[in-house]
Amino acid sequence: MSGGGAGADARLPAFGSDNWAPVHPAILDALVRANAGHVHAYGADPFTDEAVARVRATFGATAEPFFVFNGTAANVLALGSCVRSWETVICAETAHIVGDECGAVERLLGVRLTTVPSRDGKLSVDGLRSRIEGVGVEHRVQPRCVSITQSTEYGTVYTPAEIGALADVAHGAGLRLHMDGARLANAAAALGVSLAALTVDCGVDVLSLGGTKNGALGAEAVVCFDPALARDFVFRRKQTGQLASKMRYAAVQFTALLSDELWRRNAAHANAMARRLSAGLAAIPGVTLTQPTEANAVFVTVPRASVDALAGGGAFYVWDERRTELRLVCSFDTSPADVDRFLSHAARVLA
Amino acid sequence: MSGGGAGADARLPAFGSDNWAPVHPAILDALVRANAGHVHAYGADPFTDEAVARVRATFGATAEPFFVFNGTAANVLALGSCVRSWETVICAETAHIVGDECGAVERLLGVRLTTVPSRDGKLSVDGLRSRIEGVGVEHRVQPRCVSITQSTEYGTVYTPAEIGALADVAHGAGLRLHMDGARLANAAAALGVSLAALTVDCGVDVLSLGGTKNGALGAEAVVCFDPALARDFVFRRKQTGQLASKMRYAAVQFTALLSDELWRRNAAHANAMARRLSAGLAAIPGVTLTQPTEANAVFVTVPRASVDALAGGGAFYVWDERRTELRLVCSFDTSPADVDRFLSHAARVLA
Amino acid sequence: MSGGGAGADARLPAFGSDNWAPVHPAILDALVRANAGHVHAYGADPFTDEAVARVRATFGATAEPFFVFNGTAANVLALGSCVRSWETVICAETAHIVGDECGAVERLLGVRLTTVPSRDGKLSVDGLRSRIEGVGVEHRVQPRCVSITQSTEYGTVYTPAEIGALADVAHGAGLRLHMDGARLANAAAALGVSLAALTVDCGVDVLSLGGTKNGALGAEAVVCFDPALARDFVFRRKQTGQLASKMRYAAVQFTALLSDELWRRNAAHANAMARRLSAGLAAIPGVTLTQPTEANAVFVTVPRASVDALAGGGAFYVWDERRTELRLVCSFDTSPADVDRFLSHAARVLA
Amino acid sequence: MSGGGAGADARLPAFGSDNWAPVHPAILDALVRANAGHVHAYGADPFTDEAVARVRATFGATAEPFFVFNGTAANVLALGSCVRSWETVICAETAHIVGDECGAVERLLGVRLTTVPSRDGKLSVDGLRSRIEGVGVEHRVQPRCVSITQSTEYGTVYTPAEIGALADVAHGAGLRLHMDGARLANAAAALGVSLAALTVDCGVDVLSLGGTKNGALGAEAVVCFDPALARDFVFRRKQTGQLASKMRYAAVQFTALLSDELWRRNAAHANAMARRLSAGLAAIPGVTLTQPTEANAVFVTVPRASVDALAGGGAFYVWDERRTELRLVCSFDTSPADVDRFLSHAARVLA
Repeated sequence: MSGGGAGADARLPAFGSDNWAPVHPAILDALVRANAGHVHAYGADPFTDEAVARVRATFGATAEPFFVFNGTAANVLALGSCVRSWETVICAETAHIVGDECGAVERLLGVRLTTVPSRDGKLSVDGLRSRIEGVGVEHRVQPRCVSITQSTEYGTVYTPAEIGALADVAHGAGLRLHMDGARLANAAAALGVSLAALTVDCGVDVLSLGGTKNGALGAEAVVCFDPALARDFVFRRKQTGQLASKMRYAAVQFTALLSDELWRRNAAHANAMARRLSAGLAAIPGVTLTQPTEANAVFVTVPRASVDALAGGGAFYVWDERRTELRLVCSFDTSPADVDRFLSHAARVLA
Repeated sequence: MSGGGAGADARLPAFGSDNWAPVHPAILDALVRANAGHVHAYGADPFTDEAVARVRATFGATAEPFFVFNGTAANVLALGSCVRSWETVICAETAHIVGDECGAVERLLGVRLTTVPSRDGKLSVDGLRSRIEGVGVEHRVQPRCVSITQSTEYGTVYTPAEIGALADVAHGAGLRLHMDGARLANAAAALGVSLAALTVDCGVDVLSLGGTKNGALGAEAVVCFDPALARDFVFRRKQTGQLASKMRYAAVQFTALLSDELWRRNAAHANAMARRLSAGLAAIPGVTLTQPTEANAVFVTVPRASVDALAGGGAFYVWDERRTELRLVCSFDTSPADVDRFLSHAARVLA
Repeated sequence: MSGGGAGADARLPAFGSDNWAPVHPAILDALVRANAGHVHAYGADPFTDEAVARVRATFGATAEPFFVFNGTAANVLALGSCVRSWETVICAETAHIVGDECGAVERLLGVRLTTVPSRDGKLSVDGLRSRIEGVGVEHRVQPRCVSITQSTEYGTVYTPAEIGALADVAHGAGLRLHMDGARLANAAAALGVSLAALTVDCGVDVLSLGGTKNGALGAEAVVCFDPALARDFVFRRKQTGQLASKMRYAAVQFTALLSDELWRRNAAHANAMARRLSAGLAAIPGVTLTQPTEANAVFVTVPRASVDALAGGGAFYVWDERRTELRLVCSFDTSPADVDRFLSHAARVLA
Repeated sequence: MSGGGAGADARLPAFGSDNWAPVHPAILDALVRANAGHVHAYGADPFTDEAVARVRATFGATAEPFFVFNGTAANVLALGSCVRSWETVICAETAHIVGDECGAVERLLGVRLTTVPSRDGKLSVDGLRSRIEGVGVEHRVQPRCVSITQSTEYGTVYTPAEIGALADVAHGAGLRLHMDGARLANAAAALGVSLAALTVDCGVDVLSLGGTKNGALGAEAVVCFDPALARDFVFRRKQTGQLASKMRYAAVQFTALLSDELWRRNAAHANAMARRLSAGLAAIPGVTLTQPTEANAVFVTVPRASVDALAGGGAFYVWDERRTELRLVCSFDTSPADVDRFLSHAARVLA
């Protein structure tokens, strides 16, 4: 993302990011409950067994989850299941793996990212097709994986049909389909569908499943839907420094999120707050929405001169300095009052 | 470590590892207290500032700490500050980086580990000297770093004088000195000295500072004592998938450990329990101590036929299958009753 | 390059590539002359000393040459002198390192290539400036090097002023300037300037100096103009599998090329043949030059239906299948009769 | 190897290494004959086809050869066919990949080498067995490949039975067997067997086939005996900077070596000269053979004070400074007079 956060005062509504939010109380409770006695390290414990069972109840019995520390690691390890160093991952140029992971894919996998221009954060079928080239030519990196983000870095959402179409093209050409689901919950909540409906059911082969932006302390997982991709995963996870010794504390966060659809409640709330914020901002003269608000992020352009004053009313990111595009993100704990206070402030500033 | 854990029943005393233990209540409290409102992600928050200040109060004003997820990552990133791919790290063959990190150093740094045989887990000055060779010869990996573990994988402890002697040889040859301090607290508690006295004060250049085995949920840090080693660290941490977004929850664990010497109380207790266990075991016919019990781990050989029955009384690792050597580790929450119950059980079994 | 070569019959004029050509007789003679007695391996021999002296006579006394096996390796090792894994190399999207080295930079350096669209193969100052962003932000790869190709993959040539302008922008932002000079000789011959005038004299920091496409059997070198970039080079070369044991045979190829400006004679001839070919093709109805013919490569579009018949008269590459763009390359041994025969053939085919 | 070469005067007999030798005239002739007209680059040429056919005639129809630039690259690419980063290669601690390739395996594959002590350069079956451990444990690198050198770095030779025994153990445990055959010709000549008899016929899965030390200018190949190991090889070769554009000149060197058993004549002569040298040295008081002279290298200890004077009579390596062990290597062009002159000199010096 371009530019840093503005307006860090914790008393102000914070729309900086959903990872500026605290931990949901139910997840903190789960950590406390797990804190009893000794259990085997590295995941050979009943808490981890329970979390794995929850993941399988959510995504199907063949899903193989591996808990890791953060989203960058989840993406790298998921992609590492699909590609070898001379192969390439096709993705939108807006992807998190392109712009926000400091080249982790190149560094840890030795793999090139082949990017496609995108205005809304989505990869199109035509864009994907245009990058499947040079197959079999030893001078060229070989297309082997497609990576999409759901919801996207622009707060837009792929429909199951859109994902299915990408999966068809990918699989037809011998490529795997990876989904960066750091905000998968927000997409599923927005569409009113299950997590499986957006992933395994429409052809995703391997998923980076995010919990941290959905109210967890720090919980991310790679979920392999094809057992072949899970083979040897434990060695790659360990070797990359992503195996937690006290695994139970990662596991119970997922158990909590996947119980009683806490994930959906958190995400639906964040989405609703984003819609409220988006509608309010759109009504303020001088503010222009640059993306449809489909999940929990709002993108607007504002007059350059207003940015500092706006930041006095709450934190946000200046996404694109050149056109003064702001990103405002809502989270599970954003309150209607937070939104309304910021809208009032914005209306005053831009009057 | 050779062999798996035995005796996983949570009702039995668990000597499997200090990472089988739960989280110390004071650390859980710190997590709960940190759970208020929004703060900047990635460490630009007051909780992280406070933890950094605590680290500096502990190790000196020039210490530069970087919080990471686990010990493997801390070791790799710390060593990565010192060496380039054609350089080598000299260490005891018993080092955790050799035997228990699935080749992470080779994979993530492209670097060879040059090992020295060791019976007690320590690297000797002579052993170190014997590996400083081939300097300037392009066909050979170039010695550039020494890595020692404190306390060692065999539960032994380097004195400040021993560390200083290794530092002198290393620095005299242009090498850096790294310490894997996953159990540094146990060593400092055993010797009754400060954490600084075992590190920056005797020539350590970069430290992997462990919290997880000392009662944290998951808290490890790389602490650079030479500012040159900290340069560009943030990029390497991010690129390796070791930057936490909700950093405050890692930070407050260190703040808690470094407040009122919680680290020392936890470690001293674990050490005391290990001494009690060691003394008790040594008095049982058929049990032989294979290492002096200087920190929180006890190493003994037992008759092969007794292992299964012993495991009925508590968890431990079979460290060396060939000679039926067991490792028993105590932690902050091991009670005298836990120890005594296991000793009674062992006495019965071996009678 | 898109598409494979067509028309491989050795009796036909071959415009497939300058690496389809044989070895220049003077270079073969040099190999034969070097073939006497035993000398030290790995470059500690008088033949290598002489080649190094020739390189220094050509580029200045501080030039540090390192002979390697091929152009991909030269580029990777040259860039590896400038960047670390979290840094990025800015280049035209048409660069050889992007399209024709199977991701070697990503694989061997862990580094991302940041590309700029280009219609003529050149990187513009504005294009370069647009990619210098995110400096100091740990989530982003850090700009550290610029790579340009001279002459370019489209047969165009940077003037010294153009290179100097890029060097100024690069150096002003703390970036290094690398030149992929696989066809540097053709550029220097085209401009009538020295090799130094296009490199060290206008700010190039490190050069991939090509010999293979200029009549050598296989001779490439990295030439560092800043001694800091040469530091530790020998270890990186060895570790990457690029140190020749019988180095003398690589060295004497450079000695031959750099003696009596054999490099210039070879390149000037190839350039002249390309101009002859270019002029002749441009005069044929249905053929359109797509790039100015500034060095030894000719780019034309032709009617799709004519490609197979054209290939009956000589080898060439179909550079861009979509618009039937052909690339024809001349080399030191292309004869006017070769050119004229192909032109006659083309005129007949396209009539 | 420890220590540098001594006695570099080209007029003296050179026993420094078989890569100090020039190119055999028949190979130089082959290069000259190949130097006619244009052919496709990168191996799609009739010269390469012929060389491939020769390799298959030598090793069997399923052999898949890939020509590369040097022995380090051959070893790395061959091992890269067998292992992934979390797997390990078991070899003697004396192996070239351990001591003389500057950590190329670790750097280019991310793989640990697991070494076994060896006094004669050979890996024993027991030594191999002792290193197959930790299978399935995610904390440990996983044994996946065995690498042996034939003839060894100590000039000793594995019999077919010895290789077969190692292959049986390796295959029984799911490991591949790699042979570093930089001097395979010398071993086959010593035993009077075919190249196939020492490789594919006794269970070798992938071979680094050396030409350079057997009279070539620079010709090494990876030969895969299992087609599964050849899959994707071309991409790995290209991406690692090991694809020659003017491939014909590498190919014809192998064609020449494999025609009329030139390889055997060269190797047998070198071996014979080594035996003559060995016998002569052994008869000189003060000289002690430290290894049997089974191929083309002679290892002796001499009085420390005699080394400089000995070097006045010919070049050799001081292999082990500590015990003044020298290595003297014979090559295809070593003459009986060379040997005898050195022996006379040595006898004088040591008298």
